[in-house]
Amino acid sequence: MEKMRLSGHDVYYATELRAGQRDLVLAGEEFHHLCRVARHRVGDPVAVTNGRGLMAVGRVKAIRKESAILEFSDWMEDHGESYLRLWLGVGMIRSQRFDWLVEKATELGVIRISPLLTKYARSRDGEAKAGRWRRLAIAAMKQCQRSVLPEVDDPMPLAEWLEQLPPSGPRLAAIPEAEMFVGHWICNARLVPPLELVALVGPEGGFAAEEVQLAQSRGFVGVSLGPRRLRTETAALLLCSLLLNMIPAKEGR
Amino acid sequence: MEKMRLSGHDVYYATELRAGQRDLVLAGEEFHHLCRVARHRVGDPVAVTNGRGLMAVGRVKAIRKESAILEFSDWMEDHGESYLRLWLGVGMIRSQRFDWLVEKATELGVIRISPLLTKYARSRDGEAKAGRWRRLAIAAMKQCQRSVLPEVDDPMPLAEWLEQLPPSGPRLAAIPEAEMFVGHWICNARLVPPLELVALVGPEGGFAAEEVQLAQSRGFVGVSLGPRRLRTETAALLLCSLLLNMIPAKEGR
Repeated sequence: MEKMRLSGHDVYYATELRAGQRDLVLAGEEFHHLCRVARHRVGDPVAVTNGRGLMAVGRVKAIRKESAILEFSDWMEDHGESYLRLWLGVGMIRSQRFDWLVEKATELGVIRISPLLTKYARSRDGEAKAGRWRRLAIAAMKQCQRSVLPEVDDPMPLAEWLEQLPPSGPRLAAIPEAEMFVGHWICNARLVPPLELVALVGPEGGFAAEEVQLAQSRGFVGVSLGPRRLRTETAALLLCSLLLNMIPAKEGR
Repeated sequence: MEKMRLSGHDVYYATELRAGQRDLVLAGEEFHHLCRVARHRVGDPVAVTNGRGLMAVGRVKAIRKESAILEFSDWMEDHGESYLRLWLGVGMIRSQRFDWLVEKATELGVIRISPLLTKYARSRDGEAKAGRWRRLAIAAMKQCQRSVLPEVDDPMPLAEWLEQLPPSGPRLAAIPEAEMFVGHWICNARLVPPLELVALVGPEGGFAAEEVQLAQSRGFVGVSLGPRRLRTETAALLLCSLLLNMIPAKEGR
């Protein structure tokens, strides 16, 4: 695997891509995007990711009526990925704001997004939206040249989500009343591999007291995000921004 | 000035509010919001900010047909404000994304937002939008319980903006090709009062080479925001999140 970095390459998504694969036939929506939207021609540089960490780089070899053949010369692992694997659980908010959150969390490098139903979560029509959120995550992954497609879960109750978490590892919850500022936690974080972190942010109405207790009983540390009353999606993105960029890597940056 | 913190208080905006003022007549849009939207009654707790750092806390004293009288018992300076004054210059992007950026930058604590026209900036219809952005900033200030209304400039050319900056102080520009990661700059920042910082983010097409040179000649340090290709508004909010929360205060946090 070469250590290179994509420049202006458009990125396409093909789940079937394997390491070392020389040619790929792009059809369907991705072909439409390449041929009709981006209007690529034979010879143009392009990249393809399988959404599981592999990015292949090459050129358009041929364009047919319903598909294009791409030819690759380089393959990279984890292009555009953070060394930290962050799983975000976030209380349901109204649809447009959640759409936006999915796009931004994908750009920021989150690997999994779980919409949560809580006592004060407003919107409970999320099942119908999960497919839409997955399409937004794919578009954002391609746009920002990531090689991992974040998983977007169907909405589930908070208690059920807590049961699904890995058995150990650091867990943070944004709690407005918490005494510890998130920056303080980050500066003192001593993470050991695997660098997996779970972050939890409440819905617009905040968590109920019993939900805070439940999360704390499952190992969540409450942190404050500062003196302002942030909207759910703002709190989530602030927390993701800080965690994904300011926790010192073991080997330094 | 007492050191208290607002809880669930709705915040209203009245530019004429002065420190120590006991009563205030709220009329117009703000009255409409208090009476018709939030449906407050006599006796309800409310807060009012003048958008210049003052927050008064009290109750609804009387409600008339076209106005409400509020009575205050506490006044606070700089409620919800960061110890760091961050001025954000950002290349023009399309309207919906800029709307969203204004809301989020306000929530994150930025004190001034300058939409910039650059070689590759797409949208040049921003003059008509500046009034809309100011209304969005007011709404976000109230929502997040800040006491300073961020200034939103009319769009201006990058070169003109550079002339308006304070004569000294740290200046950062997000440059994808920069070798220094922003987190590295932050960890080594030794800011001295007044804690004023200027941040610059390019439009979707990035800066032209001569624009990068111009900014650097005016003291901007280029920093990278990591391995992903971020949209303008994502880059701006990531940069604001890190700068406003991770630069150590002189006295510690």
